[in-house]
Amino acid sequence: VRITDLETPFVAIERRRVLNNIDRMQAAAAAAGRTLRPHAKTHKSPLIARWQITRGAIGVCCAKLGEAEVFAEAGVADIRLPYPLQPSNAGRLTALMDKARVSFIVDHPAVARGWSDAMVRAGRSVEVLVKVDVGFHRCGVDAEDPGAVEFIRSVAESPGLKLAGLLSHAGHSYGAASEEALAQTACDEASTLLGLADRCRTAGVEIPEISVGTTPNARFSVRHRGVTEMRPGAYVYGDRTQVGLGAAALDDCALTVIATVVSRPAPDRVILDCGSKTLSSDAARGFRAAPGYGAIFRDLEATDLDSSLTIERLSEEHATVRATGPCSLRPGERVRVLPNHCCVVSNLVDEVHLVDGLEVLQAMPVAARGRIT
Amino acid sequence: VRITDLETPFVAIERRRVLNNIDRMQAAAAAAGRTLRPHAKTHKSPLIARWQITRGAIGVCCAKLGEAEVFAEAGVADIRLPYPLQPSNAGRLTALMDKARVSFIVDHPAVARGWSDAMVRAGRSVEVLVKVDVGFHRCGVDAEDPGAVEFIRSVAESPGLKLAGLLSHAGHSYGAASEEALAQTACDEASTLLGLADRCRTAGVEIPEISVGTTPNARFSVRHRGVTEMRPGAYVYGDRTQVGLGAAALDDCALTVIATVVSRPAPDRVILDCGSKTLSSDAARGFRAAPGYGAIFRDLEATDLDSSLTIERLSEEHATVRATGPCSLRPGERVRVLPNHCCVVSNLVDEVHLVDGLEVLQAMPVAARGRIT
Repeated sequence: VRITDLETPFVAIERRRVLNNIDRMQAAAAAAGRTLRPHAKTHKSPLIARWQITRGAIGVCCAKLGEAEVFAEAGVADIRLPYPLQPSNAGRLTALMDKARVSFIVDHPAVARGWSDAMVRAGRSVEVLVKVDVGFHRCGVDAEDPGAVEFIRSVAESPGLKLAGLLSHAGHSYGAASEEALAQTACDEASTLLGLADRCRTAGVEIPEISVGTTPNARFSVRHRGVTEMRPGAYVYGDRTQVGLGAAALDDCALTVIATVVSRPAPDRVILDCGSKTLSSDAARGFRAAPGYGAIFRDLEATDLDSSLTIERLSEEHATVRATGPCSLRPGERVRVLPNHCCVVSNLVDEVHLVDGLEVLQAMPVAARGRIT
Repeated sequence: VRITDLETPFVAIERRRVLNNIDRMQAAAAAAGRTLRPHAKTHKSPLIARWQITRGAIGVCCAKLGEAEVFAEAGVADIRLPYPLQPSNAGRLTALMDKARVSFIVDHPAVARGWSDAMVRAGRSVEVLVKVDVGFHRCGVDAEDPGAVEFIRSVAESPGLKLAGLLSHAGHSYGAASEEALAQTACDEASTLLGLADRCRTAGVEIPEISVGTTPNARFSVRHRGVTEMRPGAYVYGDRTQVGLGAAALDDCALTVIATVVSRPAPDRVILDCGSKTLSSDAARGFRAAPGYGAIFRDLEATDLDSSLTIERLSEEHATVRATGPCSLRPGERVRVLPNHCCVVSNLVDEVHLVDGLEVLQAMPVAARGRIT
């Protein structure tokens, strides 16, 4: 089967690029003396998780229990949820613990207490990491808060909880305005975590692991000693945002959407059959990112983007493309679109297709798609 | 089962509001002497389609053949695809025509020719409407183009094609800056279509139907005579954008997301478990729309939005909420979120739950979710 044989739009995953991306990040983690625990939200696929683990990853991360259940069922033995699970999930969590080693994050005293109570009642003990806010200002304890060490100590001393360490996600690295600013997020992240870990250790609280996330600053993060684990996700596929942040080359990007021209209503307007139901409405981020809802390769064999074509607008099932130069695209012709954000594209489709150039190797279910609970 | 019994996040659909919305739009269409053919992309559910048809709708619209196949399989007898299907889909189209009356749009000479050839080869004849651009500048022929009437005539005279009429989608109504501007989109739409239809009729080309779409300008569109059909979709659920455009009252909105507070990392910050995988990244539109990725009802019984809570940012599984006033929300508490765009929320989840207030009536599969081809 060739990629011209499939109905469009569909999501193509270039197998060799995925394997290269896995090998490259694994080598970077190994060189830095860290374990690699990729976030599986990018691919949501047990097959890709197996590739990652076979090549050296210690396990995977999942955001929600529903995702973790899919990977545990598929045989992944070590799953971390960098998500503030609630004690009301205790039943599902303990069932998951029967299938895999599981850990998750806590960042709130009442929630930690609730988990301790729930685990004691269940006669179980679960590994938790304390989430530290390193500048993204989403979840996490403020490392500067005078009560931070006491909170971490209380977690370490709570029956039913085993403190595995500290964990961060430098999500603000996506907003970095320059290469230097991006490097700085990795520096700040490491110093925040290591400083807090030092204060904990001085206070007699053992901090076995220090775990950092995000693809964008991974290349800078590996310079910092003392971090024990990294959890990038998007590196496995790459996308326009990662290219815009210098975290992937265009030739590293493994996930593209194959689309068909369905209308040419004006010389400067091309309508494609991939809308926000395929590409999502996520904007491109990164200090080098250009506008638009995806970037276009003019034909299926093109290796460079066509900068004269901009996806100005998405409807659910249409992309409205502005052509700033002469454009000969006709209805029925196919183009390749590099999405802004690969993770959300995976989540929109029930299956993707592994390809080798123009050849389709196999359909691959996005097995953990849509697991929002 | 109560809505407090389900794991969050989940999508709740208030049954009575759906029925009221259906009845109100049906009455408006009937009063204007138009048929109502709701766009099913909003709900993607055969059950809701049945409610619409039982209450007077002539059939439904679908965007893609994959959606139409689901509704035809479920017994919907008349399906229109206001989408520029390509002749390469001829096999699926003729199979669909064996199950339901089907029509779709054309806006390009080569595509119309391709369809004519394909239908002649198949020994079939299919109804098509010519898509007219009424200002959205997505698909559609330019009504002012001197060749427009000739194109429409050529479609009418093509073997294998039956010209059912003209069709438009005033998608630019979503960008209207005022009530007056919104009303003007309906006025312009009707005059563009009717003017072109007149010129066609003068040229001897019969134009049986004149079909308009979109929920936002529907209340103004019904004033214009000569239009025969309307195809709103979002009216059935309503959302923050429709409220922002005056097309729905807050109390009409039937689709909400029930979410749980999972962290309270700072007094002015609340983290919810519904991210872009549930709410999508779609912005709110409408001249009355406030910023944010959704609006919040402070608890499950609240009937008014809490304007002190703004969803500033979405990650895939988190909503980061800014509280501008005192906020007592604690981890584990539930809130209700009114999304910016109901159609894309339906597409993100495998099922929604029909509710009556706090009582869950039934789970309802989003049967046509993710049908992008």
